Amino acid sequence: MTAAILSIGTELTRGEIVNTNASWLAAELTAMGFEVLEAATVDDDPGRIGNALMRLAGTCSVIVATGGLGPTTDDLTTAAVAAAMGVEVVRDGGAIEAIRRRFESAGRTMSPSNEKQADFPRGAEVLPNPVGSAPGFAVAIGSCRAFFLPGVPREMKRMFTDQVVPRIAKLAPNLTFQTRLKTFGLPESVVGERLAGIESAFPGVRLGYRAHFPEIEVKVHATSASLAEARALADGASTEVRARLGDVLYGDGDDTFAEVVGRALRTRGFRLAVAESCTGGLLGHLITAEPASDYFVADVVTYANGAKTRLLGVSEDVLRGHGAVSAEVAAAMAEGVRRVCGVEIAVAITGIAGPSGAAPNKPIGLVYWAVAHPGGTIVRDRIFNGDRQQIQTFASYAALSLVRDVCLGKVV
Amino acid sequence: MTAAILSIGTELTRGEIVNTNASWLAAELTAMGFEVLEAATVDDDPGRIGNALMRLAGTCSVIVATGGLGPTTDDLTTAAVAAAMGVEVVRDGGAIEAIRRRFESAGRTMSPSNEKQADFPRGAEVLPNPVGSAPGFAVAIGSCRAFFLPGVPREMKRMFTDQVVPRIAKLAPNLTFQTRLKTFGLPESVVGERLAGIESAFPGVRLGYRAHFPEIEVKVHATSASLAEARALADGASTEVRARLGDVLYGDGDDTFAEVVGRALRTRGFRLAVAESCTGGLLGHLITAEPASDYFVADVVTYANGAKTRLLGVSEDVLRGHGAVSAEVAAAMAEGVRRVCGVEIAVAITGIAGPSGAAPNKPIGLVYWAVAHPGGTIVRDRIFNGDRQQIQTFASYAALSLVRDVCLGKVV
Repeated sequence: MTAAILSIGTELTRGEIVNTNASWLAAELTAMGFEVLEAATVDDDPGRIGNALMRLAGTCSVIVATGGLGPTTDDLTTAAVAAAMGVEVVRDGGAIEAIRRRFESAGRTMSPSNEKQADFPRGAEVLPNPVGSAPGFAVAIGSCRAFFLPGVPREMKRMFTDQVVPRIAKLAPNLTFQTRLKTFGLPESVVGERLAGIESAFPGVRLGYRAHFPEIEVKVHATSASLAEARALADGASTEVRARLGDVLYGDGDDTFAEVVGRALRTRGFRLAVAESCTGGLLGHLITAEPASDYFVADVVTYANGAKTRLLGVSEDVLRGHGAVSAEVAAAMAEGVRRVCGVEIAVAITGIAGPSGAAPNKPIGLVYWAVAHPGGTIVRDRIFNGDRQQIQTFASYAALSLVRDVCLGKVV
Repeated sequence: MTAAILSIGTELTRGEIVNTNASWLAAELTAMGFEVLEAATVDDDPGRIGNALMRLAGTCSVIVATGGLGPTTDDLTTAAVAAAMGVEVVRDGGAIEAIRRRFESAGRTMSPSNEKQADFPRGAEVLPNPVGSAPGFAVAIGSCRAFFLPGVPREMKRMFTDQVVPRIAKLAPNLTFQTRLKTFGLPESVVGERLAGIESAFPGVRLGYRAHFPEIEVKVHATSASLAEARALADGASTEVRARLGDVLYGDGDDTFAEVVGRALRTRGFRLAVAESCTGGLLGHLITAEPASDYFVADVVTYANGAKTRLLGVSEDVLRGHGAVSAEVAAAMAEGVRRVCGVEIAVAITGIAGPSGAAPNKPIGLVYWAVAHPGGTIVRDRIFNGDRQQIQTFASYAALSLVRDVCLGKVV
């Protein structure tokens, strides 16, 4: 069953606010089993509101519209809908009373402009608003049911859940199931190539890709004759996706990379210490975005060379001889922070995040990272591409990845 | 002059991500003087992409479309545009070479699926992408110019600015001028109340507010008979906005809060050291998001209590007597990191970011922060509202704000 979203408001077409209502409604409708074909946003222009409404009503079974139901002169949705449908606007006595009671119960006086909020296209069904002054309404346009809700997110969400969902639930047979899988380590193009042919091998399955630097999320979306069949289809295709991606696939759904690394550390009973230079605290921030106090002990960000010596005991000779951006300093930082924190495993990063700081044979993007663990110290290096933020992010992920590999016994 | 935005992607119509691209583009086009009539979002369906394109081309002078230019099978924009225009898809040799060079300079091999990103509708103008693998393109549909950009926000923004703006600037009678001012420290409603009446005092000026937690950006948008007049109008209103907001207003346009604090430190010739606990590295990350090596020395994230003692010399008695989340420990952390780093000024944060960890009289959100400087040590505390990420972010900003106040001599 198909649905569309219509967002109304010049504050949206001018970009003054982000349209979070549309994404919230899209996710709710999708979860109910609707296929959302379009989300249209128009300014507070009665002609464009009406045109968009009639166009969407011709292609979809359900429209959820938001905005333009307020008391001020730029709230034009009701008039636009009535004009597009060729009916008059009528004032609803019951709705006026409900608005008046709402104001009185808040100890305020209803102003004359609020009476406008009791206007509806003739024949519309009034949808009460328990959390604000603007009621909504529903109309039928041909075989399409269109619902009009306030633009205030809190009111819109409550009214969608209480008023709209019960009226459309039986239209949507929930026949879709989606699995999300998260990867790190390959570019989107290569992930896509590894998964080539899965859609034809599993009819009813569509793969989607979403890049959230430096991760690629793979969505396995299955549609079938029943929800149970869709779930089984998604599970089958997901198993194939997992087999093809192997280690690149690090987690499901809402896992974060740092959480997955944290689980590997917990399994080994390892406490972690971190030393950073060019990443400036980002690695610690990624680790502590979720609770981590059971394994994370400390992160020493030694931005200046003197701090590497004072705080981590990196020898001045090593710093002078090899430079701060070197395999030797990365190893000394990891070993130093492991020693001063008294932990089982430590990871360190040193590099050049740019935009300045390049030296002969040391280009921007050159990063060394090291893990010191009970079995020894491992150093890796790479020249990362991108801007400062991307280099910092990729370096932090690479360091976490090496910690995970050591915990899992993949690197010794 | 009229414009429309076309966002392409099933991840949008399913509500998996919020469409921040559309709001960013709407704001940019509005600031250039375009009237944005509609922002349409469609799924990755060639028919709906083509229909939306042709419909918008019939009503607008400029269309900016995003998404669907990647290397995977769900990227269908190019084929859809070609089909809608009745032209074939052709592969561009120059674009293939540019993509290949981009991969080679990153030390990677271009995969065959990336060649698809060199496909364009016949007759299209190729728009190079300096920051990603997917080039964009431009086509003319009747009197409408349509631009197709990648959906990755960083790439889209760069290509809009570099490639689209020069091609459409002369279409927009630029009679508008916008000033952006950045604030930290007051909620949006209070910022709005402080600025009440400015729009009526300055006819032609509209104020916009954009919340980017924990900051509020105020946009002063002026329209007049000429660009020079609009600029003068925006300047006049901005002066009034500055006067009313005072210290809450910390910078202009693209300033970040950490950069402004960095400027205050440089003015005093102070080097900064940081100690963190509940913020886990976020404060260091905010400071090092821009180059900071001339003033930033080190950040010691002591997540475990033992690390506070080992690394910063916080006495075990103080930790036991007052708890890790206390004014005494915040002060001892700031003084400790100032001493071990040998710097002029140091800032420390300790608190409870949640979701667990509350103790009697120490609720989630309780944070202490301290600045140790040549004149002594200052401690502040507050119970922040919100989730873990919001508490960490607000605490980091509060600590930076205290550093700035000390540098500017506002707190002693």
